[in-house]
Amino acid sequence: MDVVIIGAGMAGLTAARELTRAGKQVLVLEARDRVGGRLFSHEIAPGIWIDLGGQWLGPTQERAYALAQELGIELFPTYQEGASLLYQSGTLRRYQGVVPNVGLLALLDFGRGIARLDQMAQAVPLEAPWNAPHAAQWDAITFATWIERTMRTAIGRWGLTLFAEAVFAAEPYEFSLLHALFYIRSGGGVERLSGMRGGAQQDRFRFGAQSLAQRLAAELGERIRLNSPVSRIQHDSAGVVVYGGEQAYRARAAIVAIPPTLAGRIHYDPPLPPARDQLTQRLPNGSVIKCFALYPTPFWREAGLNGFVTSDTGPVHLVFDNSPPDGSVGILLGFMEGAAARQMSRVSPEERRQAALTCFARYFGERAAKPDLYLDHDWSTEVWTRGCYGAHFPPGTWTQFGHALRTPVGRIFWAGTETATRWMGYIEGAIESGIRAAQEVLETLDPSHPHRL
Amino acid sequence: MDVVIIGAGMAGLTAARELTRAGKQVLVLEARDRVGGRLFSHEIAPGIWIDLGGQWLGPTQERAYALAQELGIELFPTYQEGASLLYQSGTLRRYQGVVPNVGLLALLDFGRGIARLDQMAQAVPLEAPWNAPHAAQWDAITFATWIERTMRTAIGRWGLTLFAEAVFAAEPYEFSLLHALFYIRSGGGVERLSGMRGGAQQDRFRFGAQSLAQRLAAELGERIRLNSPVSRIQHDSAGVVVYGGEQAYRARAAIVAIPPTLAGRIHYDPPLPPARDQLTQRLPNGSVIKCFALYPTPFWREAGLNGFVTSDTGPVHLVFDNSPPDGSVGILLGFMEGAAARQMSRVSPEERRQAALTCFARYFGERAAKPDLYLDHDWSTEVWTRGCYGAHFPPGTWTQFGHALRTPVGRIFWAGTETATRWMGYIEGAIESGIRAAQEVLETLDPSHPHRL
Repeated sequence: MDVVIIGAGMAGLTAARELTRAGKQVLVLEARDRVGGRLFSHEIAPGIWIDLGGQWLGPTQERAYALAQELGIELFPTYQEGASLLYQSGTLRRYQGVVPNVGLLALLDFGRGIARLDQMAQAVPLEAPWNAPHAAQWDAITFATWIERTMRTAIGRWGLTLFAEAVFAAEPYEFSLLHALFYIRSGGGVERLSGMRGGAQQDRFRFGAQSLAQRLAAELGERIRLNSPVSRIQHDSAGVVVYGGEQAYRARAAIVAIPPTLAGRIHYDPPLPPARDQLTQRLPNGSVIKCFALYPTPFWREAGLNGFVTSDTGPVHLVFDNSPPDGSVGILLGFMEGAAARQMSRVSPEERRQAALTCFARYFGERAAKPDLYLDHDWSTEVWTRGCYGAHFPPGTWTQFGHALRTPVGRIFWAGTETATRWMGYIEGAIESGIRAAQEVLETLDPSHPHRL
Repeated sequence: MDVVIIGAGMAGLTAARELTRAGKQVLVLEARDRVGGRLFSHEIAPGIWIDLGGQWLGPTQERAYALAQELGIELFPTYQEGASLLYQSGTLRRYQGVVPNVGLLALLDFGRGIARLDQMAQAVPLEAPWNAPHAAQWDAITFATWIERTMRTAIGRWGLTLFAEAVFAAEPYEFSLLHALFYIRSGGGVERLSGMRGGAQQDRFRFGAQSLAQRLAAELGERIRLNSPVSRIQHDSAGVVVYGGEQAYRARAAIVAIPPTLAGRIHYDPPLPPARDQLTQRLPNGSVIKCFALYPTPFWREAGLNGFVTSDTGPVHLVFDNSPPDGSVGILLGFMEGAAARQMSRVSPEERRQAALTCFARYFGERAAKPDLYLDHDWSTEVWTRGCYGAHFPPGTWTQFGHALRTPVGRIFWAGTETATRWMGYIEGAIESGIRAAQEVLETLDPSHPHRL
């Protein structure tokens, strides 16, 4: 065996594919009984797929689009015809286009805030955010503190708080300004991160995003072993012994392709350097619950609505039309994120269902309160993920420990979307990280061969 | 077996003692080949003991003093006769008493800052910091942000930064204002936390602080099993099966008495509730390296110095006279904390030694550069602790997840100094937590019996 890869999410599968193509013998150990990690699709009705996990692609996510095309995976645009809704201070407002009419002052404030974020983000080097000119200062405050200091209107503050919740699945006081700026640059700007058309929520997968992982897994065949959680990795300068499930696997290198907070729970022998261990102590996952309601038709479309809602009243602050491309049924997707997700994680399933449907009815009327089917998925209950969408960096983490994020430890290499430079936290970032880690392994195993992946 | 206790630090040993006294059968599983956890003493010269870990007791730490007395453990006061040193902006200054003369403005600023912290801390309920009147606001900013906003002089800002480093072994931008206030109240105020006489650094252990743990362990005898790291806990409403070392132990309850970041690495079956898991994802340990230099005599005393130094030039920002009570040899103890510890953790042992001795010589002259013996201890390399003195709470952690800190999960109970209300982070807090957890276990196992520990 050349390389054992821990985790059959998009990062691990990509690394396995690249290494296999380079002629290496690989084995992928996956804790779950399925591949895909944070991509997890579900057939909600015959032939109709939803994604309990990641579900979108958008412009500049070039590796992900190329892979989807290569694997023959069908995409379609997120539904966006018609008016969006804004629920704010007890009032429901319709608007066309990207920006609701919340008053000139608030619009100017919000626009100015976004422009400043985008501009500051340009100064953050993606390979080494700790080298940004004001890194120490930006990493010493929470994103919430920056919002508080900078925004002049209540709506402007709320808008950026919602941005934080929607993009990080965390509250703006949980991560540093430096992390916000890194992430904004990593994804190509505030609008690109937030938007549907032209943004990260542009395109969906006809048969679910997990199909990406499943096609890769089909190629890899026997090289993937499910139900094999890794508890321990022994390593020395010649290679590794990985304990997964009931077996031990010897290889020349290992790639750990799971979220940092889980990577830190593996027992390494000899132990990892302090900086690496202290880093994974400091990279918590966000909190999100995706809520789906299935209706006979996308009835809101008849009223000229596109199903998109932003709201200051929770627990669902964000809604999308998640119907299939032919609109044969209607599906609303609501997000509970950050504090709302934590609160709703502690109530009964029935209470959570009621809370979600109350929100849907608030935005789309009483019909929305009575779906044919409701289901939700709380990613903090998933033992092999423990929170979504991904990890965020609390204040001080990038500047004190960021250098250990990708640095290999002997024959152990690190992948996973959290280790990406572009589109960290997204499918695209996972793919980038898998290619990069595979490259590092090849350079280590065959130092004299030139490798280009 | 009634109760399996994970961890033979002061929390676990105290719980074991209380439960044994109440007639319960207990077993303590310890990962290391020694007891004491973060108490770790070393005979630096024949009959002369130093503490590589926790080493002090101070007023109001009543349980710890009572225990030391009961176990016949000898204490003695930290050496404090003579002048202290302040090294600041390249100048070395002597001063008598607690406060150096840094100018009236700086003194007023510093005094006002401390008074405000103490006053705000009074509003934080120790059992539930998230219920403090301004909890949301205080948890949304870093302690560094508060310092920046409040302090008017550079020396005032530096003083509180040094306080953060010395007390939390972390930088003030790594934890929230709410955590700082909780911790200040938990320890009885800024001065009590910082001081020698009358403060948390008042008294030392003649034969090392670990002797506390060793005496408790001697009482418990065969009930302690060393070299038994716990990897997994199965649990249901009737009890637990704990996998430690190569064996499985069945009991009616378990107490997990290790730092949160390690408690989170155990595999629990069924899994812990999301809030508990997400909490331990967010409680990183601080970073500290203790540096000791042994000299034929405490020569600085001849110059009228007490060996205490605060300095703005690192990596050693804080020095104590750590000589034995009879002054038969001289020992300086220097602390590298927070960012300095992380930096010094990455250099060679020889480089670290040079850096520490350069600091000692800067404060006490060339004689200090040539000790008979030098040694240091980097707690972030300790696999079964992974950082000291203890955990800190990054912004948002207390308010979003604090409720899960002590809440038992079925038959699993939580101890360790991080779960204490008074003197969290100290020996006293560990003892409190062990007693409290033992009490909870007794109430669960024998609900009809009244228990008073």
